[in-house]
Amino acid sequence: MADIARMAGVSSSTVSRALADHPAIPEATRNNIQELAAKHGYVINRAARNLRQSQTQTIAVAVPLGHEREQLISDPFFLRLFGHLADEISQRHYDILLVREPSPDAHWLGRLVRSQRADGFIIVGQSNQHKALNLAASSYRPLVVLGSELPDQIYCSVGSDNLEGGRLAAEHLLRSGRKRILFVGPAELPQIDLRLAGYRDALRDAGIAIDDRLILPAHFTGTSAFDQVQSAITAGVDFDGVFAASDGIALSAIRALEAAGRRVPQDVSVVGFDDSDIASQSRPSLTTIRQNVPEIAAALVDQLFRRLDGEDTRSAVLPVNLIIRDSAPAP
Amino acid sequence: MADIARMAGVSSSTVSRALADHPAIPEATRNNIQELAAKHGYVINRAARNLRQSQTQTIAVAVPLGHEREQLISDPFFLRLFGHLADEISQRHYDILLVREPSPDAHWLGRLVRSQRADGFIIVGQSNQHKALNLAASSYRPLVVLGSELPDQIYCSVGSDNLEGGRLAAEHLLRSGRKRILFVGPAELPQIDLRLAGYRDALRDAGIAIDDRLILPAHFTGTSAFDQVQSAITAGVDFDGVFAASDGIALSAIRALEAAGRRVPQDVSVVGFDDSDIASQSRPSLTTIRQNVPEIAAALVDQLFRRLDGEDTRSAVLPVNLIIRDSAPAP
Repeated sequence: MADIARMAGVSSSTVSRALADHPAIPEATRNNIQELAAKHGYVINRAARNLRQSQTQTIAVAVPLGHEREQLISDPFFLRLFGHLADEISQRHYDILLVREPSPDAHWLGRLVRSQRADGFIIVGQSNQHKALNLAASSYRPLVVLGSELPDQIYCSVGSDNLEGGRLAAEHLLRSGRKRILFVGPAELPQIDLRLAGYRDALRDAGIAIDDRLILPAHFTGTSAFDQVQSAITAGVDFDGVFAASDGIALSAIRALEAAGRRVPQDVSVVGFDDSDIASQSRPSLTTIRQNVPEIAAALVDQLFRRLDGEDTRSAVLPVNLIIRDSAPAP
Repeated sequence: MADIARMAGVSSSTVSRALADHPAIPEATRNNIQELAAKHGYVINRAARNLRQSQTQTIAVAVPLGHEREQLISDPFFLRLFGHLADEISQRHYDILLVREPSPDAHWLGRLVRSQRADGFIIVGQSNQHKALNLAASSYRPLVVLGSELPDQIYCSVGSDNLEGGRLAAEHLLRSGRKRILFVGPAELPQIDLRLAGYRDALRDAGIAIDDRLILPAHFTGTSAFDQVQSAITAGVDFDGVFAASDGIALSAIRALEAAGRRVPQDVSVVGFDDSDIASQSRPSLTTIRQNVPEIAAALVDQLFRRLDGEDTRSAVLPVNLIIRDSAPAP
């Protein structure tokens, strides 16, 4: 370091601070010293500096795919959320580390936290990782999860009011005179299970018994939703409404209905979930439950940075809205 | 480390390999040893390991915003490209570090490379950073840039055939009988300058003189394109066609024309660039030049990984297509 100081004509402490990117050293001097150091084999290693400062100026956005290994980052709903998350994070002058975890075990999150590659973590979706999230949150604070608040939850979650969303969807179909309403979606996921619970509540309040044959498991991706609805039609399951756990599933259901000669909404009304871009642009356009993605992203990032500042934040549940379009018009 | 080995009942070399996440050690054993080590204060630090191995298993995607500080990551074109990049990268089991650089100087890329936070870099857009890119590429190989091939270029670029795109757009307008064609866009950017050069080529081949009053500078974001077109109309600039450097600019131009009582395409034909999602969904739908985003993303990632394998890759120029819709119908 003394050599670099001599070559640059500055003191050793100036070199030391320049290599640490200290703002007190003018930028031109910093660059000059850093390049001199690099040229002479002194590695200015941010990773090494992080060892001392435990500061990466990076937020990790992690996507556990325990439930759905096929899901791509280019999935429209994820991408829209990620764009808003990234804007919020980069406005705070942090970089973003995107980690897609295709085979999470009970320890993946602990490993990720211990790797010290980020100052805090946003986990997009609970997937089937409730236990792993609790385990990590028991000893690590700057962690926020997109999802629903569940019993025995230690971690901080931010998510839409899925129970209310399920209720709004089913009530709208019931008001339109629909009585036999298919539910289609991966109810093993906590957020989707709450949508199903809202559906059950609405039916119960309307005095309609739950028929388990109307509850179809389906994945978000691939042909699973199309196949499930087609099988139900072929098996003669009687239904006049569909509540789909996502807009993508709703469109698959509509395609299966059309293939069987059933008209939407004349014969069967369909309600989706998310209000993603495709909802307004598909034909018929989709009646759906809107999740407020910019608001969700802002709340996730705000909670995380408050946690980085040492504050204890509580889980947040954000409101949803029924958006009425052609696939299930107003009665 | 000997203590951990004793507690776990394994050899020291097993502990060492478990802490390094070596696949030869069964995952359950690795997790057990890692948690034991963490519990007893042995930090399993991926950053520390990176110091030795110089391997982060991470690709950085960097966005220099020298030209346009307002641009958000949720910008539709960027987000679509990023989704495809992220899918390609995560399929190779790498994580993604997203860096938005709002005030790049000549040394930002050198600093980023020297920080050793990623094994390789994809730079999205040349912005006004040609010199900085050349400087970094002169000593650093795993670097690929989305953009056009320029004179005196050292770095490897992948991008659409912007010259051909500009020519296709202008030729289509000329074939429709349009003769006074406005060009709207930030021509100080290399890729946009090539689109303008294609426009000039087409006009020259048609024997039409270039009128510099028809060339309007405009940013991608904000109200700049709307304002520029509105000013041109107010100033009495005579034009019957518009070639916009992006679909977003094309829509701003259409709004400015409509506000002035001019009909698209009856009075003025408009051609955009990108074929982003809005192009097919806007009213009128946009005639545009399609950039093949999945192909561009695949080529960027393929070139980068070949460079990581030590191969020398050459810059690639990918084909574009004219997509005819309502804003400038076929003649």
